[in-house]
Amino acid sequence: MNKKNCMVAQSGGPTAAINASLAGVISAAVSSGTYDTVYGSQNGILGILNGNYLNLTHMVKEDPCSLFVLRHSPAMYLGSCRYKLPDYADADDVYRDIFREFEAMDISAFFYIGGNDSMDTVLKLSEYAQRIQSPIRILGIPKTIDNDLCATDHTPGFGSAAKYIAASLLEIAHDTYIYHVKSVTIVEIMGRDAGWLTAASALARNSYSAAPHLIYLPEVPFSTDQFLADVSRELESKDNIIIAVSEGIRDEQGHYISSSNSQSDNFGHAKLNGAGKTLEYLISEHFDIKVRSIELNVLQRCAEHLASETDLKEAFASGEKAVTLALEGISASMVIMRRISDAPYTIVYEAAPIQGIANEAKTVPQNWINDAGNDVTAEMTAYLLPLILGEPEIPFKDGLPVYLDINHLIR
Amino acid sequence: MNKKNCMVAQSGGPTAAINASLAGVISAAVSSGTYDTVYGSQNGILGILNGNYLNLTHMVKEDPCSLFVLRHSPAMYLGSCRYKLPDYADADDVYRDIFREFEAMDISAFFYIGGNDSMDTVLKLSEYAQRIQSPIRILGIPKTIDNDLCATDHTPGFGSAAKYIAASLLEIAHDTYIYHVKSVTIVEIMGRDAGWLTAASALARNSYSAAPHLIYLPEVPFSTDQFLADVSRELESKDNIIIAVSEGIRDEQGHYISSSNSQSDNFGHAKLNGAGKTLEYLISEHFDIKVRSIELNVLQRCAEHLASETDLKEAFASGEKAVTLALEGISASMVIMRRISDAPYTIVYEAAPIQGIANEAKTVPQNWINDAGNDVTAEMTAYLLPLILGEPEIPFKDGLPVYLDINHLIR
Repeated sequence: MNKKNCMVAQSGGPTAAINASLAGVISAAVSSGTYDTVYGSQNGILGILNGNYLNLTHMVKEDPCSLFVLRHSPAMYLGSCRYKLPDYADADDVYRDIFREFEAMDISAFFYIGGNDSMDTVLKLSEYAQRIQSPIRILGIPKTIDNDLCATDHTPGFGSAAKYIAASLLEIAHDTYIYHVKSVTIVEIMGRDAGWLTAASALARNSYSAAPHLIYLPEVPFSTDQFLADVSRELESKDNIIIAVSEGIRDEQGHYISSSNSQSDNFGHAKLNGAGKTLEYLISEHFDIKVRSIELNVLQRCAEHLASETDLKEAFASGEKAVTLALEGISASMVIMRRISDAPYTIVYEAAPIQGIANEAKTVPQNWINDAGNDVTAEMTAYLLPLILGEPEIPFKDGLPVYLDINHLIR
Repeated sequence: MNKKNCMVAQSGGPTAAINASLAGVISAAVSSGTYDTVYGSQNGILGILNGNYLNLTHMVKEDPCSLFVLRHSPAMYLGSCRYKLPDYADADDVYRDIFREFEAMDISAFFYIGGNDSMDTVLKLSEYAQRIQSPIRILGIPKTIDNDLCATDHTPGFGSAAKYIAASLLEIAHDTYIYHVKSVTIVEIMGRDAGWLTAASALARNSYSAAPHLIYLPEVPFSTDQFLADVSRELESKDNIIIAVSEGIRDEQGHYISSSNSQSDNFGHAKLNGAGKTLEYLISEHFDIKVRSIELNVLQRCAEHLASETDLKEAFASGEKAVTLALEGISASMVIMRRISDAPYTIVYEAAPIQGIANEAKTVPQNWINDAGNDVTAEMTAYLLPLILGEPEIPFKDGLPVYLDINHLIR
């Protein structure tokens, strides 16, 4: 029997777990004995268009340890892209190029690890494959810190970001409580359209600290009057208020709060402030107290040293599941996780049709947000808690975590 | 023999190691058998003026595990203050109050854990004690992420911050290299007047990544023309440039590159706002490429989960040493670390007179900065490396690190 090859690529923004999914694909594909070679396309779908591949079977055979290190390496070993495939009705030459390349490389399955935009690519390739009656299996593996993909209980990458956010919030609380002066600390968290990550800040609460005291998600229209009233009320009973706010909060008219305020710096440049900075200035204007804003920035998606072991395990298993699905003849689908039990927390891996997932977004349900629109409910924290559990065994050398060499990405 | 008591307090900004020094003081004081009670003054010297104490001997007896947890708890268990003692020639009533309280509480030794400003307090109390011929031992224990205290090889708290900065820089590098587009990423690092922390970013370099590609310390006058030339040259040979910059960079005239907003705190320090953001806008104006700035913010001083075990060990030992010194009759001194060997890295703990330390600052020597003023030398990284080694065993519960309950600080 003539063996075939398979190909995997990564797309969209980095997470702490996307390389764990890649490791899962490689591990399952190599150990299945079904594929001669697992190719990695560099920079997403662009690698196929540019003929830019890594031989991942070779990588594993050269260094059996590489899969172990890859599983806990941040960002994307294969690089990423933000390339959106054109509609094949408009321009099918790109599709012809891609499938000609698949044929030339004897590819029988293509795995794409990514978020909403990447699932659009999976959908389009799947439809084109069906149109030309290609036998190539096209499978999506979910990845996004935003947790906004439909059909799946949650997305790989989210749990690690949630753990980083909750732990950082707790540490910021310890940092904040030391001064016996009134203060407001605002922590700006990623998630332009979905508040899952900002909600995860609630996991920082414990027996001694109620921080964050206020939580604002993009799912609730943001009112500056209500916000100032909330802060004023909290300051009556507390010295130090800590607020978690999504970068994507918008007013009733749908305008981002982040762009409504501007200052200029030493060079006379107009500054476009983030949501956190904007609220910092707003509070400075209305209260004579110490105020600080903190933007967690890209570290919330790449701080692998604080990854969730549950997340890495699920990301790896999602990659393995995609290979199993391909071998079963499934295509035009994405791997999903279904939570079949809360106690004990139990997940099963299944496939869902890629239609209905691509270009859709799952936001926080209104009944998981409190009536005042400034906090989340106990249902939300119960949903979130299992996702941040466990700490991976990450080796350190010279005081720093050891990650897989990405020299091939550096130009 | 009538036993006496001792008192300990913390002051200044938080670090990941200041509670390890507190644990060292308590451990040595309790096990010496010399003191009836170890009191903790809350919010630095203010606790003495307000009669606000914790009984730390009681804490240890109630929960023997508390010292273990305290050693790796971030920020300051006793709370902090930014209170500057007046000159006793101007107003000695504060001093009379403090020493009357010491006498009332039968205090024979006072330990103050802090940075430059706190050592000013140690100096003034020491001079006053000498003036009134008080037998009370006054001892400083160094603490600052800035590493700018004189007489000591380095300061407890610095190593953990340096480790956090280097690890974050490495993770940001992984995050940055994934896109095959030209980009500049600026990481703003704390250190108003001394570049030690910014220099620590150089430890992120490894066999595959040269990031940060440019490093700007406050010790070198910052030229925007030279900066733009540096960036332009780097972009010729590389796609993704990562730059580490101190919050305190100033031009030839000594003006901060950051915002013109020049508020100052109780000690006359200018409040800084956004060197990284300012450079981000400068690059946007001159290059048509993707640019981002990241402010590591307070996490670099409170991210205990990534503390350096070497740092925690040395902080604890510094606390123990202060108690030993007090028992030997030493006063008006600060504990210092002297590096007696590089290979193997070996530190001894000694005492140095508090004069010559208080109100002095140790900046980065010019010969540890390269000639172009945009990087550090190999001597610098050799000095820094031992300080970030080792990872503490921090217990996790519900996915988050377990720290000591600071309910007494929360109002």
